Amino acid sequence: MQSLVKLYHIECRPPSLGDNTGDLDRLQKVLSGYFQGPKPVVPFTRIAPVAEAFRSAGFKGYGLVIHFPDAPQLVDFFAEAPGILPAMALDLGTTHLEASLLDLLSGKVLDRAAVENGQLEFGTDILTRIHFAATKVGKQTGLDLLHERVMASIQRLALEMTGRLGLKPVQIMALCVSGNTAMTHFFLKLNPYNLCREPYIPMVNRPDPFSASALGLDLHPAAIVWVMPSIGSYFGGDLIAGILASGIDQQEATCMLIDVGTNAEVVVGNREWLIACAGAAGPALEGGVARMGMRAGPGAIEHCTIDPDTGEVEYRTIGGAPARGICGSGVIDLVAGLYLARIIDIRGKFRPTQPQAEGRLVLQGDGLAYVVVPGEETELGKPILLSQVDIDALMRSKAAMYSILATITNQVGVLFHDLHRIYVAGAFGKHILPRQAIVLGMMPDLPLEVYAPLGNSSLAGAELMLTDESARERCRKVVAKVTYLELNVNQEFMIRFSGSRFIPHTDHALFPSVPFYGDS
Amino acid sequence: MQSLVKLYHIECRPPSLGDNTGDLDRLQKVLSGYFQGPKPVVPFTRIAPVAEAFRSAGFKGYGLVIHFPDAPQLVDFFAEAPGILPAMALDLGTTHLEASLLDLLSGKVLDRAAVENGQLEFGTDILTRIHFAATKVGKQTGLDLLHERVMASIQRLALEMTGRLGLKPVQIMALCVSGNTAMTHFFLKLNPYNLCREPYIPMVNRPDPFSASALGLDLHPAAIVWVMPSIGSYFGGDLIAGILASGIDQQEATCMLIDVGTNAEVVVGNREWLIACAGAAGPALEGGVARMGMRAGPGAIEHCTIDPDTGEVEYRTIGGAPARGICGSGVIDLVAGLYLARIIDIRGKFRPTQPQAEGRLVLQGDGLAYVVVPGEETELGKPILLSQVDIDALMRSKAAMYSILATITNQVGVLFHDLHRIYVAGAFGKHILPRQAIVLGMMPDLPLEVYAPLGNSSLAGAELMLTDESARERCRKVVAKVTYLELNVNQEFMIRFSGSRFIPHTDHALFPSVPFYGDS
Repeated sequence: MQSLVKLYHIECRPPSLGDNTGDLDRLQKVLSGYFQGPKPVVPFTRIAPVAEAFRSAGFKGYGLVIHFPDAPQLVDFFAEAPGILPAMALDLGTTHLEASLLDLLSGKVLDRAAVENGQLEFGTDILTRIHFAATKVGKQTGLDLLHERVMASIQRLALEMTGRLGLKPVQIMALCVSGNTAMTHFFLKLNPYNLCREPYIPMVNRPDPFSASALGLDLHPAAIVWVMPSIGSYFGGDLIAGILASGIDQQEATCMLIDVGTNAEVVVGNREWLIACAGAAGPALEGGVARMGMRAGPGAIEHCTIDPDTGEVEYRTIGGAPARGICGSGVIDLVAGLYLARIIDIRGKFRPTQPQAEGRLVLQGDGLAYVVVPGEETELGKPILLSQVDIDALMRSKAAMYSILATITNQVGVLFHDLHRIYVAGAFGKHILPRQAIVLGMMPDLPLEVYAPLGNSSLAGAELMLTDESARERCRKVVAKVTYLELNVNQEFMIRFSGSRFIPHTDHALFPSVPFYGDS
Repeated sequence: MQSLVKLYHIECRPPSLGDNTGDLDRLQKVLSGYFQGPKPVVPFTRIAPVAEAFRSAGFKGYGLVIHFPDAPQLVDFFAEAPGILPAMALDLGTTHLEASLLDLLSGKVLDRAAVENGQLEFGTDILTRIHFAATKVGKQTGLDLLHERVMASIQRLALEMTGRLGLKPVQIMALCVSGNTAMTHFFLKLNPYNLCREPYIPMVNRPDPFSASALGLDLHPAAIVWVMPSIGSYFGGDLIAGILASGIDQQEATCMLIDVGTNAEVVVGNREWLIACAGAAGPALEGGVARMGMRAGPGAIEHCTIDPDTGEVEYRTIGGAPARGICGSGVIDLVAGLYLARIIDIRGKFRPTQPQAEGRLVLQGDGLAYVVVPGEETELGKPILLSQVDIDALMRSKAAMYSILATITNQVGVLFHDLHRIYVAGAFGKHILPRQAIVLGMMPDLPLEVYAPLGNSSLAGAELMLTDESARERCRKVVAKVTYLELNVNQEFMIRFSGSRFIPHTDHALFPSVPFYGDS
């Protein structure tokens, strides 16, 4: 398999009266000598720039070819071989866009950057944005606006990263975009209407690569835009990227990949087979939990412990800043701690008489709440609370999570103990302590070394697609191989969900390492 | 070889929870079953329209595929099979654009139309326009303007022809453009600077086909635009089209193709080999001759005879209108008649004492002139004259013409008498009487049945490219096969040119059927 973008050395005899080959034809003729299969074509808009650069370089230099899957495209010409060939990998997250600038010649990452998704003002969650897409805003549709915003965010990233290196966005020759299926639709300006309506069918899962100019992106006009393919509405290109980044498609031993956001997406498999599913995990795990909930950022309580004997709370915020809220990993730690201190029972309900809770429980309009941080210690002077409502939400989320994992493994006849590795993607994987997730019964009771955080695997997979010649072939195979299991109508999942709404589980034998307080 | 544009019947099971294939992926999957080689890709801009049409048609109907040479493109979807698939063939002439609207399903011509080339105000001849292209006009370059004008002329043709049939330009799925190399450059908005500068190298001879939207043409946005390939600056796609239309590339017997405008372009060959050349024939044969000269249009003297005994002139104008001028074929008739009546000598000079000229010769500032039509018979009340200067110009043109024909046949070792057929393209071929051209020594002294008018072969060739599956393959082969002979530096041509500046020729043996008045 070819590099995505490649320079070819060209040296031609100059034209003469005896050789009236056209400039571009002359270049294409020499270039095609490098190619066994389809010869490079020159897109209409590149005829003049390429032919003029070739002539002014004295009919020798370097032709730049982008290897589109159908046919290679000759899109630029340089008198001198460029020192780097910039490309951009992009994780198109619902809340943040993260990008890296790569050099396709060396395969090295030159820079990274992140921006908030410019679509946030139209809805923090995907469903709101899908509904917004169908609305009219003046002469534009919501979809127009969502598309514009994400384009602007991407352009900002490109400008920022190239700017720091003294480059220009127009030098970016390739863009690989990895996102969930809805974000991919917004990016491509495709109507997302059917994504959230049974039977949940995307307009397209595997768009053919196209040129940046078609999208109006201010990169090199002929830059290839490669969108990571999706498997379905609830299993997007970011997960395919995750599979590539984790390498489970190449492993002999069966592994699992978990990506948790509003949805929990799970892949189980090895180099022989891959099965995937996704289920609504609720917003609890994405920071949307609790009125104090927040995304992982400065001042977010990332971790906390409750002394099971004294009830004393210790916490750590991101960046060491005064506490501003609790992010997903903090909530998990907290609820696990509340359970181990017996401040909540196996159903996740407060036990107001528990001594360790003394002075920490307050009564609010919608019930009891636990004071995680008193007002005097917080940034805004108000206490940070975790209410019964918040805990109930987390209980549903954790139950969904475990049920998904149990259902998918059962469906393929794999035991949790057979899993060689469980890769946990994203911010969730980075911040969560697997031990606390096990205490809650959210993740299976396995040795901690089985759990491996994966970082931003959506971005890492996109980077691989640009720099690793074999990744594009792997991607093609993965997409063809993955079997998607629809959980929305899965009876087994529903039954398992009921059993999972206790800490750690109604079947305590599944969690031998976790104390069981089923007597309370 | 495939039809250029083809409908494929598609019938899919609707999506379900158990089958979450994306809409477009579903369509592409079924469609790809029709294809052995490269699978159809969907251009970015067509994803939404195709996917939406497919869904709203209930996942069955007809996919429209354009067979681009590198990979087929799926660009539209219809619930019901359309009754016609319009395409447009275009002869991109220097003075006029002629077009036909075809139905790709039946291969029939639906309509034809012509407009004046909107570039005329920037120069009637190509050289003037090439120089104009390099100028600045406000914020635009001359090239921008030339390109705009030709686009507008094309759009007008598309609108006119579709309008007459109750269709819309957006229904046109393919456009094949045939023009000389400079017109092709203007069409593609490519700098023509080097076309008229030694060694006369086009920017591109064989542009890859592209989509109409790339050019901003208001046809179907994904319509394929196919530009007839050129061989060199002086041998354009219109001549390649002419070869296809004449079929000389398929004939066993050697034939000749002549296309005369400002340049004379000539091809000799058969199914084994093809040799081509072009030379400046001067404006005499394009109507630019004579202060009374005009292009073939109403009122133009198309044919005339001079009684060799009485000197009486009879003429016929196009449309029978009062005489307004003389077009190329009329000038040829006239000069041949003047020679046979011995009013001019073998050098083309007036013989003022010749009785047949009595009352017809007048003295002007630049010498003698012959009164073809007295003022009282003409539209404008002024006599229509043919001056010595005009005749001198024709003599150069006819000498160039014969020298080109003689040189090319000699270079390939073919005698004129070996030619099975001489195809004469365009308006020249339509109006000229071969006998008169033979008298002048402009064309070889062969039986008249050897000469065959070809009509607008540039347009006919473009039509073939759209409707005849084999024509595109023939075109590829012709372009690879044609050897171009550069006459600008050809010593033999120069020698022959001197010998050809007499009527019919210094070597009278070459024209046995023509009376020789070499004694005068």
